[in-house]
Amino acid sequence: MSRFGITLGDPCGIGVEVTLKALQAKQEYQKDALLFGTLSLLEYYAKRLGYAMHFHQILSIEEWDDKAINVYDPLPVVREEIEIGKVTKLGGEIAFLSVKSAIEFALRGDIASVVTAPLNKEALHLAGHKFAGHTEIFGAYAHGDSYAMMLWSEKLKVIHVSTHVSLREACDRCTKARVLDVIHLAQQTLRKVGILKPRIAVAGLNPHAGENGLFGREEIEQIIPAIEAAKAEGLSVEGPVPPDTVFVRALKGAWDIIVVMYHDQGHIPLKMLAFDSGVNITVGLDVIRTSVDHGTAFDIADKLVASEQSMLEAISIGKKL
Amino acid sequence: MSRFGITLGDPCGIGVEVTLKALQAKQEYQKDALLFGTLSLLEYYAKRLGYAMHFHQILSIEEWDDKAINVYDPLPVVREEIEIGKVTKLGGEIAFLSVKSAIEFALRGDIASVVTAPLNKEALHLAGHKFAGHTEIFGAYAHGDSYAMMLWSEKLKVIHVSTHVSLREACDRCTKARVLDVIHLAQQTLRKVGILKPRIAVAGLNPHAGENGLFGREEIEQIIPAIEAAKAEGLSVEGPVPPDTVFVRALKGAWDIIVVMYHDQGHIPLKMLAFDSGVNITVGLDVIRTSVDHGTAFDIADKLVASEQSMLEAISIGKKL
Repeated sequence: MSRFGITLGDPCGIGVEVTLKALQAKQEYQKDALLFGTLSLLEYYAKRLGYAMHFHQILSIEEWDDKAINVYDPLPVVREEIEIGKVTKLGGEIAFLSVKSAIEFALRGDIASVVTAPLNKEALHLAGHKFAGHTEIFGAYAHGDSYAMMLWSEKLKVIHVSTHVSLREACDRCTKARVLDVIHLAQQTLRKVGILKPRIAVAGLNPHAGENGLFGREEIEQIIPAIEAAKAEGLSVEGPVPPDTVFVRALKGAWDIIVVMYHDQGHIPLKMLAFDSGVNITVGLDVIRTSVDHGTAFDIADKLVASEQSMLEAISIGKKL
Repeated sequence: MSRFGITLGDPCGIGVEVTLKALQAKQEYQKDALLFGTLSLLEYYAKRLGYAMHFHQILSIEEWDDKAINVYDPLPVVREEIEIGKVTKLGGEIAFLSVKSAIEFALRGDIASVVTAPLNKEALHLAGHKFAGHTEIFGAYAHGDSYAMMLWSEKLKVIHVSTHVSLREACDRCTKARVLDVIHLAQQTLRKVGILKPRIAVAGLNPHAGENGLFGREEIEQIIPAIEAAKAEGLSVEGPVPPDTVFVRALKGAWDIIVVMYHDQGHIPLKMLAFDSGVNITVGLDVIRTSVDHGTAFDIADKLVASEQSMLEAISIGKKL
């Protein structure tokens, strides 16, 4: 099954623009893509970009039209209702419904994976949906015992023990059970792309990986027991590695993926390496989800200057997984 | 005054080797350098490296010999007592006494600054000196109301609100008073190198800089008040900036320096940019101290393969400050 969904994200941001640019750059994607978002906005941007695209609105997969780009519009509005470049309740509502609809299509097996364009958290909350982000929406609706956020670039891959929580709470969430879960998710995901025996590094939580307990005990009490358990299962796991050197060593080829303990431990190195081209993947759910690694970029919305690079990579990785 | 000190660090590591290589590469440094460490080991490495160097041992600055490389040996031993490549109590004791002596020379005004080669914390502790590192030894003996660790590379400079403490304690140390102190230290240090109105960014502590309190309240309760106070003094300060994008933006020229909240927030990006060539500076003390940004590297000690690049940069920055 090669059909896949793309959610257009917050309609006031650059989601529609980067999606259309990606579908224009790789026209072979057009026949398999199902877009979740505002039809009137797609027509507006296609015209502005000068693309000869034909959209077909469907309510269920049975209405699929092979000759058009298929669209599921969860909350049809005229283009003028969308306040481009602004944080709005309507934008948050459309973004949320687009994602929720895409998950439903995926759970029914109508599409094989979902690629998400960025949403704005503030808008999401204005609309009454108190999720921290896409990862949490998928966590709530797409099932799965445990899931994690992976950031994927060609040179470096990381998977997070925690993401959208305070740094204090990230310390609390660094438990043996969760670290072991995330090691398993890393293993499973890399096997799907053909790395049969992934070499996994686990970063420490504290500076110098705690320096034998001098700067924090999470390594001794939680992380090392998780690593030992994974090794006992036969996995190739090393660590805890000092957080400030693990990425440089991985870049030199020491490991295939790094298990990181908190949001910025993984995001800082990835953004430095691949600011606009990284792919964000939610792994461990019944729905495969990849995402661009940039935001809604309200400041450049409607200026037609956004890059489709990350969207193209997100589609490509989604298809591989 | 152009005389400066170099502490040779743990004698079992690569400190002596990189120091001699640096003094050979830039021979103009030889007449101003005062080396703090083991004379017999200097003679051993100079011979192995094939350098025609003449060392002169002094007990006080009055004995300075302009025609030689001057050495203060705080604990003379024969070369065979040093177990190269090992963590030893003797190594820790020599490393500690070398640093303490250098601080004393600097406080008397005999030398203008101190460059430190790496020591090993475990060895330091074996010798009974329970410091987390150089920064803390300088903090204890070199006076100064408040001090901070700065990492310096040509492209990116960061200064730390906390360093060698657990991540949980780093959260506790993120206070308005400390953040404001570190902003001041950043300002003072950059002015010394000729940046009269430094553009300072302050990173958040939490992911997305707390997302308006959703993921932690340190930004609202501590960091923003510190930034506002600094702005009221006329400083050019921005933030709190989300930690995962602040470095990329600084690299593009947005700011001259970033105030970071914990060890790895600053060390991860710096090590990715400048793994072996970064310089570590302790600022805010009565003694100017710069350091190589690598470790003792016991695994390659005595193999003559260590690079002197970071030592050369540490000397150069020390002279500028």
